Amino acid sequence: MLRASTGNFFEDFEVGQRIRHATPRTVTAGDVALYTALYGSRFAVQSSDAFARAIGYPHAPVDDLLVFHVVFGKTVPDISLNAVANLGYAGCRFLHAVYPGDTLSAVSEVIGLKENSNRQTGVVYVRSQGFNQHGTVVLDYVRWVMVRKRDADAPTPAAVVPEVPAALAPDTLGDAAPYLSIGDWDFGLSGSSRRFADYRIGERIDHIDGMTVEEAEHQLATRLYQNTARVHFNQHSEGQGRFGRRLIYGGHVISLARALSFNGLQNAFHVAAINGGRHVGPLFAGETVYCWSEVMDMGELPGRDDLGALRLRTVATKDRPCADFPFTDADNRYDPAVVLDLDYWVLVPR
Amino acid sequence: MLRASTGNFFEDFEVGQRIRHATPRTVTAGDVALYTALYGSRFAVQSSDAFARAIGYPHAPVDDLLVFHVVFGKTVPDISLNAVANLGYAGCRFLHAVYPGDTLSAVSEVIGLKENSNRQTGVVYVRSQGFNQHGTVVLDYVRWVMVRKRDADAPTPAAVVPEVPAALAPDTLGDAAPYLSIGDWDFGLSGSSRRFADYRIGERIDHIDGMTVEEAEHQLATRLYQNTARVHFNQHSEGQGRFGRRLIYGGHVISLARALSFNGLQNAFHVAAINGGRHVGPLFAGETVYCWSEVMDMGELPGRDDLGALRLRTVATKDRPCADFPFTDADNRYDPAVVLDLDYWVLVPR
Amino acid sequence: MLRASTGNFFEDFEVGQRIRHATPRTVTAGDVALYTALYGSRFAVQSSDAFARAIGYPHAPVDDLLVFHVVFGKTVPDISLNAVANLGYAGCRFLHAVYPGDTLSAVSEVIGLKENSNRQTGVVYVRSQGFNQHGTVVLDYVRWVMVRKRDADAPTPAAVVPEVPAALAPDTLGDAAPYLSIGDWDFGLSGSSRRFADYRIGERIDHIDGMTVEEAEHQLATRLYQNTARVHFNQHSEGQGRFGRRLIYGGHVISLARALSFNGLQNAFHVAAINGGRHVGPLFAGETVYCWSEVMDMGELPGRDDLGALRLRTVATKDRPCADFPFTDADNRYDPAVVLDLDYWVLVPR
Repeated sequence: MLRASTGNFFEDFEVGQRIRHATPRTVTAGDVALYTALYGSRFAVQSSDAFARAIGYPHAPVDDLLVFHVVFGKTVPDISLNAVANLGYAGCRFLHAVYPGDTLSAVSEVIGLKENSNRQTGVVYVRSQGFNQHGTVVLDYVRWVMVRKRDADAPTPAAVVPEVPAALAPDTLGDAAPYLSIGDWDFGLSGSSRRFADYRIGERIDHIDGMTVEEAEHQLATRLYQNTARVHFNQHSEGQGRFGRRLIYGGHVISLARALSFNGLQNAFHVAAINGGRHVGPLFAGETVYCWSEVMDMGELPGRDDLGALRLRTVATKDRPCADFPFTDADNRYDPAVVLDLDYWVLVPR
Repeated sequence: MLRASTGNFFEDFEVGQRIRHATPRTVTAGDVALYTALYGSRFAVQSSDAFARAIGYPHAPVDDLLVFHVVFGKTVPDISLNAVANLGYAGCRFLHAVYPGDTLSAVSEVIGLKENSNRQTGVVYVRSQGFNQHGTVVLDYVRWVMVRKRDADAPTPAAVVPEVPAALAPDTLGDAAPYLSIGDWDFGLSGSSRRFADYRIGERIDHIDGMTVEEAEHQLATRLYQNTARVHFNQHSEGQGRFGRRLIYGGHVISLARALSFNGLQNAFHVAAINGGRHVGPLFAGETVYCWSEVMDMGELPGRDDLGALRLRTVATKDRPCADFPFTDADNRYDPAVVLDLDYWVLVPR
Repeated sequence: MLRASTGNFFEDFEVGQRIRHATPRTVTAGDVALYTALYGSRFAVQSSDAFARAIGYPHAPVDDLLVFHVVFGKTVPDISLNAVANLGYAGCRFLHAVYPGDTLSAVSEVIGLKENSNRQTGVVYVRSQGFNQHGTVVLDYVRWVMVRKRDADAPTPAAVVPEVPAALAPDTLGDAAPYLSIGDWDFGLSGSSRRFADYRIGERIDHIDGMTVEEAEHQLATRLYQNTARVHFNQHSEGQGRFGRRLIYGGHVISLARALSFNGLQNAFHVAAINGGRHVGPLFAGETVYCWSEVMDMGELPGRDDLGALRLRTVATKDRPCADFPFTDADNRYDPAVVLDLDYWVLVPR
């Protein structure tokens, strides 16, 4: 009499399968306020209708990562309810601005499958897209997760491992940002006078501040995204599990790091793409997130003189300030405090 | 010099008394976002303006239980500030859809009084109605609570015990749902292909997932509803009381169970009525809520071929999964893990 | 390679300096909902568009203290990131109603500087103003904080200590309230029949209820205000500090006391001015706030017969009910439970 979904297992997926995910979601000013309350984000374009209008937006767009979390959340019940681990994402591009009132939905296509040699699990590769109510793609990314098999004896599918881009090229960026009137960008209100030309490849920035996460906070966030992954919400079961506690959604860490990075990256107002990200270690309630960033590359957007692109690595730690930029040791092992290593492109005014 | 209200005591009520409750409340997209963050609800009609419009709503209606909590909250300062126990509710009907921007207010009429034999307390029966800004009734229910007497020697009123309906008949349901264009209902987006005809009386559904409640969460929720019952907010006084801790608002448990029930009842988008509910045991922060449901009855709505009604019993437990449907034993005693036994009607597309 | 701001130190300020603060902020219905969820405020004018419209507002204005917190929050990164203590504020006037959709920004002028004799710190006096998107001043106040020096040997500036008003005169009040049609004020819906003439100077009101604060709650609130003061958010660093824990933003206590004061001051719908405030002791998560108020003065608004002004002292305590109005002893020392002593003007219908 089981009518509720227990999610898909590895053997339920096949290459080429297209999954329309449930529960479209209208994003509103209420979601934006909650996002601010959860992370304290201060980028002027997303914070102020007046600022956004002055430079050419119709009004303030929704924070890029809020869009990501909402789209990602929709994929969870179908893709990763039985995931053992999120292995990675790549090629994530923000393709169209989202505004309060827009309704987001998501579709995924299975683009790869590879059973693990233990036959207990396998890797599922999906390409997921988020759409607005007009059917316009707002977000596009590839993700791969290790998913349990329901039955270890289920047949092994032919291994298909898709090629995923190591990093997006600058000329693929910027579709979600209208052409902006940078002459009307108020560098006093945005918090810094630094423009694209003021950054240098190799520059490192300690974002200084730390933020402690509470159980209620990450639960509110993850439910706001309608993300149903059980490990985030159920102390009764997680208390008996691997960590003895609820695991904080990795996207929560990304949003915290992004909000903290305002201090030093004030004009990096738009995440245009995520090249890849690694959740190096788990984060738990009561722990404090710090972060630092490095400018890995700089790029021009073809035909645009309003914005330039910075490729950033942002590294987040827990319970460890980042004044000395903790990262990896000589053997390429991460500092034990590191929880996130994120590689992404942001746009800044020229 | 006492100017602040200490609430009404049993002897302050009289049968026929009509109480207009304070603080009208405009419900907004902000409240809707918070409701999503608090419970993670995923019913497509309330989540998406686009989905709601496609089937005939002007846009997404406010979750029925959010309406209930706001109306209920208004009654607390006048009816139940000195309550010892919430004994029950009955005949609760949702009569008109509520949309963001609507302003809710509440009026109660005392319809029964019965002093207890100990003369310390008595039972107060009220019929409460919620109105929108146009004076349209959006919600109507009967509730009875045990209220303390200020003075045990105050005279005993004539006992008046109103008849309350055991359950509402299907032909009283559906006023809050416009006639819907089910041909435009997207069963992919709503999360399940199951329609009215796919359910069976007696069918049981384990909703599988559990949700742990934090103090900050239930306090945020209960304040959002402007519910002032002290037991939910004051650790200083509750720490010295019966449980040694803050008691979670029973309505919070109902909303959690309703949100969890999406997994198995994806298309049961509208709570049309609550026949009755029993808060079998208290819930405290740190505990995890699970639930299961049984289809107790199915009903047709006269003259409507768009929707059918399922009468559900939803049973919520704490710290106990519901795969074996925990309920009562041979002596009709609830399983010790049960915290809620709710009897209600939901509408599903035909 | 330090690119992130570590805030201004005492020697970075000079008298006459004008600082435009970063990150304009559009206040929305989402912020209003969060404010309700955080404090449970119940004043009818701010809670209901219908109530506000009936008396002459275009719709419900944003709570005055939410406006204060947002404007105050903007000043933190420039003024008080290196503050040792918030010493006081004065002359705080609410000058124009703020509505959802308005964008707030802030500018401060340094109006005084006085180095302390230890040469480690100095007092910085600023006059801060909040503006809406039309450039209209919505809020104006003076604040003085003790700020660390970066270098104890930095030269001592000439001491300039501005005169700050002990209390605002009633004839400076009311600019933020349009002329109201009190004949349309529904005293049933507002929660009390008391009008201006029903109050008496010297009257004391115990607001009775207590509210326990959780870490997640004050963090959500303080981030909502984009206030970046580190002591509120970072358990890793604060755990090694003076108190061993995160300190709750003083404004959070003010908002809690204001919301609790509804019980007894139901029609005191608008904070017109704050004469001064003292955070007598720190508040920490897990502690319960109670409060009481005294009517210190009553004033008429020149040319207005709609509203009168009550000057209130509201005293908040922690973990101590206020039935006996705890305040100071014979030696003028505060009761150890007192955390806030606030002197302000509210407007009530005549």
